[in-house]
Amino acid sequence: MSTVTSPRALDHPARDEIRLETVLHALSDPMRLRVVCELDQAGAELNCSDIELPVSKSTTTHHFRVLRESGVIQQVYRGTAKMNGLRRDDMEALFPGLLQSVLGSATRQEQRDQA
Amino acid sequence: MSTVTSPRALDHPARDEIRLETVLHALSDPMRLRVVCELDQAGAELNCSDIELPVSKSTTTHHFRVLRESGVIQQVYRGTAKMNGLRRDDMEALFPGLLQSVLGSATRQEQRDQA
Repeated sequence: MSTVTSPRALDHPARDEIRLETVLHALSDPMRLRVVCELDQAGAELNCSDIELPVSKSTTTHHFRVLRESGVIQQVYRGTAKMNGLRRDDMEALFPGLLQSVLGSATRQEQRDQA
Repeated sequence: MSTVTSPRALDHPARDEIRLETVLHALSDPMRLRVVCELDQAGAELNCSDIELPVSKSTTTHHFRVLRESGVIQQVYRGTAKMNGLRRDDMEALFPGLLQSVLGSATRQEQRDQA
């Protein structure tokens, strides 16, 4: 018996497949950090097109895929929109405090850069 | 006037040159995470040869260099030994809570892997 899934469903790691090294790598890019910060500030799912990055569309798609495959975000098709949300519960269960410290550090760094 | 430095002094980023993305990248490798955990547990400087990694000597040297150039560790020659220590104060000043959450997450993951 195989599970029936939508052909448009995207692969995500289960919680117990998420690795710290992979999450840190996903977060180690300025564009991906920006995506995570925007999703955090929105406090809700965002469409890919809601997050403007100064890179090409294919590079943007790549960054979202790295975040999804690492377990940091979930991506779900809703109609024609691909919606993105942080996997806060999974992150907090596996790596307590990590996401908050990364988000806080990113904000502080941005403030330093602008000072 | 140039500052007189030892020819054996190694390059380190100043505190304000340390970048979050670069630190996260440095921590996104299992061997480098292990080095950081061992330095944390030792609570003191360790010689490179005190930390045994299941990789070649040149790869070990590479991992230490990535950690030093990111600002996570300092490396200082003392006599013939190259001693390594965490830059806890710099990490905590720039990225409060980050190092502790990464170290705690690495320990939890190791415990899960062994369960």
